[in-house]
Amino acid sequence: MSAEKPKNTSESVLLHPLDTAAAPEPELLCIFGTGDLGRSLGQRLLQSGYRVVYGSRRPTSCGPLPQGTQVMSHAAAAQSASVVFVCVHRENYEFLETLAPQLRGKVLVDVSNNLKKNLYPEANAEYLQRLIPGAQVVKAFNTLSAWALQNGPSDANRQVFLCGNSAEANQAVAKTATKLGFTVLDRGSLSAARELEDFPLQLFPEWRLPLRVAVGLIAALFFYVLIRDVIYAKVELGKDISFRIMVSLANKVFPIVSLIMLSLCYLPGVIAAFLQLYRGTKYKRFPDWLDRWMLCRKQLGLVALGLAFLHVLYTLIIPIRYYVKFRIAASTVLQMKENQTKEFNTVWAWQGDSFYSTGILGFGMFLLLGITSLPSVTNALSWREFNFIQSKLGYLTVFLCTFHTYLYGWNKFLRPSSYKWNTPPAFMLSLVLPTVVMVLKLLLLLPCVDRRLTRIRQGWERTDPKDDSRKSLLA
Amino acid sequence: MSAEKPKNTSESVLLHPLDTAAAPEPELLCIFGTGDLGRSLGQRLLQSGYRVVYGSRRPTSCGPLPQGTQVMSHAAAAQSASVVFVCVHRENYEFLETLAPQLRGKVLVDVSNNLKKNLYPEANAEYLQRLIPGAQVVKAFNTLSAWALQNGPSDANRQVFLCGNSAEANQAVAKTATKLGFTVLDRGSLSAARELEDFPLQLFPEWRLPLRVAVGLIAALFFYVLIRDVIYAKVELGKDISFRIMVSLANKVFPIVSLIMLSLCYLPGVIAAFLQLYRGTKYKRFPDWLDRWMLCRKQLGLVALGLAFLHVLYTLIIPIRYYVKFRIAASTVLQMKENQTKEFNTVWAWQGDSFYSTGILGFGMFLLLGITSLPSVTNALSWREFNFIQSKLGYLTVFLCTFHTYLYGWNKFLRPSSYKWNTPPAFMLSLVLPTVVMVLKLLLLLPCVDRRLTRIRQGWERTDPKDDSRKSLLA
Amino acid sequence: MSAEKPKNTSESVLLHPLDTAAAPEPELLCIFGTGDLGRSLGQRLLQSGYRVVYGSRRPTSCGPLPQGTQVMSHAAAAQSASVVFVCVHRENYEFLETLAPQLRGKVLVDVSNNLKKNLYPEANAEYLQRLIPGAQVVKAFNTLSAWALQNGPSDANRQVFLCGNSAEANQAVAKTATKLGFTVLDRGSLSAARELEDFPLQLFPEWRLPLRVAVGLIAALFFYVLIRDVIYAKVELGKDISFRIMVSLANKVFPIVSLIMLSLCYLPGVIAAFLQLYRGTKYKRFPDWLDRWMLCRKQLGLVALGLAFLHVLYTLIIPIRYYVKFRIAASTVLQMKENQTKEFNTVWAWQGDSFYSTGILGFGMFLLLGITSLPSVTNALSWREFNFIQSKLGYLTVFLCTFHTYLYGWNKFLRPSSYKWNTPPAFMLSLVLPTVVMVLKLLLLLPCVDRRLTRIRQGWERTDPKDDSRKSLLA
Repeated sequence: MSAEKPKNTSESVLLHPLDTAAAPEPELLCIFGTGDLGRSLGQRLLQSGYRVVYGSRRPTSCGPLPQGTQVMSHAAAAQSASVVFVCVHRENYEFLETLAPQLRGKVLVDVSNNLKKNLYPEANAEYLQRLIPGAQVVKAFNTLSAWALQNGPSDANRQVFLCGNSAEANQAVAKTATKLGFTVLDRGSLSAARELEDFPLQLFPEWRLPLRVAVGLIAALFFYVLIRDVIYAKVELGKDISFRIMVSLANKVFPIVSLIMLSLCYLPGVIAAFLQLYRGTKYKRFPDWLDRWMLCRKQLGLVALGLAFLHVLYTLIIPIRYYVKFRIAASTVLQMKENQTKEFNTVWAWQGDSFYSTGILGFGMFLLLGITSLPSVTNALSWREFNFIQSKLGYLTVFLCTFHTYLYGWNKFLRPSSYKWNTPPAFMLSLVLPTVVMVLKLLLLLPCVDRRLTRIRQGWERTDPKDDSRKSLLA
Repeated sequence: MSAEKPKNTSESVLLHPLDTAAAPEPELLCIFGTGDLGRSLGQRLLQSGYRVVYGSRRPTSCGPLPQGTQVMSHAAAAQSASVVFVCVHRENYEFLETLAPQLRGKVLVDVSNNLKKNLYPEANAEYLQRLIPGAQVVKAFNTLSAWALQNGPSDANRQVFLCGNSAEANQAVAKTATKLGFTVLDRGSLSAARELEDFPLQLFPEWRLPLRVAVGLIAALFFYVLIRDVIYAKVELGKDISFRIMVSLANKVFPIVSLIMLSLCYLPGVIAAFLQLYRGTKYKRFPDWLDRWMLCRKQLGLVALGLAFLHVLYTLIIPIRYYVKFRIAASTVLQMKENQTKEFNTVWAWQGDSFYSTGILGFGMFLLLGITSLPSVTNALSWREFNFIQSKLGYLTVFLCTFHTYLYGWNKFLRPSSYKWNTPPAFMLSLVLPTVVMVLKLLLLLPCVDRRLTRIRQGWERTDPKDDSRKSLLA
Repeated sequence: MSAEKPKNTSESVLLHPLDTAAAPEPELLCIFGTGDLGRSLGQRLLQSGYRVVYGSRRPTSCGPLPQGTQVMSHAAAAQSASVVFVCVHRENYEFLETLAPQLRGKVLVDVSNNLKKNLYPEANAEYLQRLIPGAQVVKAFNTLSAWALQNGPSDANRQVFLCGNSAEANQAVAKTATKLGFTVLDRGSLSAARELEDFPLQLFPEWRLPLRVAVGLIAALFFYVLIRDVIYAKVELGKDISFRIMVSLANKVFPIVSLIMLSLCYLPGVIAAFLQLYRGTKYKRFPDWLDRWMLCRKQLGLVALGLAFLHVLYTLIIPIRYYVKFRIAASTVLQMKENQTKEFNTVWAWQGDSFYSTGILGFGMFLLLGITSLPSVTNALSWREFNFIQSKLGYLTVFLCTFHTYLYGWNKFLRPSSYKWNTPPAFMLSLVLPTVVMVLKLLLLLPCVDRRLTRIRQGWERTDPKDDSRKSLLA
């Protein structure tokens, strides 16, 4: 549609774009492949002031190309430029071998990706280099989508990773990427190509551990609650309450796992602080497991927030459930029949309302933490602001949510009937970790501890008294 | 306030900013106009290392200007610099004609916008060029707000579009824009100015179709439900239930339209897949209607999410409505009076709880899709991650929401009383499209179909058997 | 772990990174300090094509450093490069004095921050300059986190502020920052260092006023409601309803403050418009209080949205509260006992459902306003789109929320029992400001007023009739 009628003359190497006649001739770049990626890249190059020529299998019928570009046979196109972007699937690389003479000495930019990891024994770019040993292959741009290429860099899509064996070729491609508005990260020799090709195939690597923790906890607690509620009722009372699985049990498991994961979010921070206090220095590395744990705190928190959100919805639909409506009506009818007037219990009203109120405020704070972890919001915060929210408000959230759970427990802690089959109710299990986190945090807030920790974090180091005493003994 | 006392001497062309005395004199740029835009632009230029001089109608009383800049008469300011930014409303361009001698050979940067499209027969920049033929007019920066100019480029505000008839003038402005941290997109000759001036006046072009679809569907379904519920009750039963319009009817229409629009989100994808399978190639363009449909899928989905959100709120307030409380009390009283004990129906409990549970999970997934379509979140995802969420989790959302609706239907499908006046209930209408989408998607997931589609999307093309057979016939 | 075994030979000044042997030797930069910041900065410099050498107190045991870097004593490292990044806490600057000879003539980049404002009498960078008068100290990079340094610039983390007394030194650092992908803002001489060091210590300066307004209003209204509800019930009726504080009172105070703050969001806009109309020009500055008010409108609105969100949750839990369930059961029992059939009141049903419906729609619109004020969403909008949402949809939100409150009032306005102790109910207080805003806005929408305002905003100015008449009198 928007492409010029191609003249299909492999001689017409010189192109005259419309509006730049007066200016010094802009550099000509070649693109192999007229697919989505090729077209997007061409458009962007054009807009950034380059001239573009396409190499195509069928120069006469290759569909719409950006206005102002030309299309030729692969051989002709390759000869006209010194940099060739190979926007072709790896499966179709073989034909390039026939172009080896035209591609000798050229910079070949491999932008390809695979559909899966380890699909081929060698990286696409290395394969390309093997096919055309005379060319200088540079792996680049593969982490960008056609969309990002066409529309220019945006926040997270600003970085272009590249690698290649020729430093000059790398530099030439880096120059173009910079002119297109991207930030270039040179990853060294072509042996890094595999790593670069694996980037776009990553599937939430940093979410895996938190999601596994969530699934594991949900499964374990679901069975625990299933046994204590549904199976207990069947065995001991002979009642079938299996329908409760869908809402009641879910609404027990989700908040419990949410609270546990929220405390898992803040536990590594206090552990790290105690480790630093114990070691008397901040210059020793944390053990690997702690490092990895600290790195997925954000994800732990967001999964916990998702579960808290489900808990809120499951709670709010309670009064429209058939089961609940049935029970309320039955209880009212019973109250009528027995002709007794129930007394209003102010303590229960206080307990229930405080329970709901802390829950709402805790969820509100939790949501605020979630919103500030959106990339664009995080970026707009100063270091101190982010710290204030994720630390101060974070612990406040832990406190509110834990208090909410304690209020739920209320008099259940001491009531023997809570301990069916001698097991504690599930919500009690969820209180262990957050309570530990809060106690440890309170210890860290003691002025003497806090002062020492601050000094350590400013670079102060304890000269080990044992070392000193030993030295004096020796002396 | 922050401006220096202007000396108002048109001779004082040399300016000495405070801190750069030792360095080579930075370039001096001129700004006409001391309004918001002029001040913001001046501040930014100053911060990026330029010197700035303002041209003003009233150099002595033009309000606060960035500290370190000078202000003069237009003529004096124009003479002192080779690039002049015209930060003046088009309505006031005429006075520039009198400055034609001083502006000869200068680069005039037109940053203006209009309040409406097609307000004037020619673009502002073309008008300016006509007024001062001796200058080289460049249209630029008009897509940026004063805010973006003052605070430097941010995500979507990084691009500066420019156009102009002189390649050198364009390049000079592009250099300045790059130094200010923007990415420059050269749109060619000044005839593109109109297009650039229309950019900031766009009002959700990509949202129009989805919003129209939403409004059309809401209106149609509202009348359908109004007739079947309110008018049917009036005509057949003689009851006035018009009060139900505010909540009950809204809570029927919103979820139905939401489900339909959610399936409209995923329908074009499966249609496109079948089209590629049928054509045996991915290199043929999709028909225009399909292209346009595919491009507004995100907006379709977000409108559907908004309606789903309203549906959730309308559902959650059910138990506090006067009407509902009245009915429950009446039913309890009736139950008492007739002295009958209702039996608890476990099947109903299962159905009801599953209905709510799928709804909550479906809404949760839907919200997750919505969050990942926030620009900053999308940018932080790899291609495969985005694909996983919007495709895999997207179809899961469609499934959960459709299943939620089927559970709502439950035994209503076979109950004759559902078909008032021989019309199906509205929710049944909403099930058609998502069911079709899911069936088609299941077909595409069949291994043989999936394999072929994957090959086509990797660039494989079917050599048409008919063509081949014809060829062999000819041969 | 990933660091090379340091050879600890202060002579080995020449470094040969792996992959750049063929290319022209890249520039060598020195980093003092091997902490988080030093390591992140080194990694980033390396990726951007620089060579990096670390100076360390203990070159043999300084923990993991980016692969490809070398580590030496401070003196040796300083001698090998012309730019030294000082990634050391200010508390430890003193040792640098001993390196004065090695640092003579070098560019020292101070990236440090303090834990509090005004902790020291002079800025860190000025202190450093005083310690090493022979070096050229440049303050830079301190507004970036180690995270931003390692991962390259992202949206709000793109700007590097720098200042220093030597323009050449500033320029050298600016060049490096630009190569790292940042946008440089030169703030002039080293006397600006204090200001730069205070940036990362800012704690929501623009949120303070709105939060104070919110806290003040919440406190005032809480006491008002406490007196009218709880204390009135105690004094006049002898009933203890103090348990209502947790939910009922909160759910009165939050929506009221939310509505007041929402109208405070739109009030300065109409005041500014009337001021412009009165003055007949847009070129006069607004009074300071109005300026400051206008600048915190976004924050006012977001705090109001947070309170509205709490109001929604507090409302939705109403039916599961013990108090509410108790009252409903009691009322049903009473109804039964007195054997009276209540009539269904259609007017009440209309009123109640409209009340909820406007509330839901108002909250939905409000949420939309909130979402569009997320930085990444705002950035993706054109000026006209942002204006449309925040202005048109904003006033629609004010209207819906105010109407929601009027519907709540309904017949309470005229009922004498509403005015306990002759005070109006709290919700009536909340209606004053939004009503004023809407009336003023309606005045501004009158065609004659609107036309004049548009002209003024396009730069038209009224020549004061009084001035003219005076002139004619004089003439």
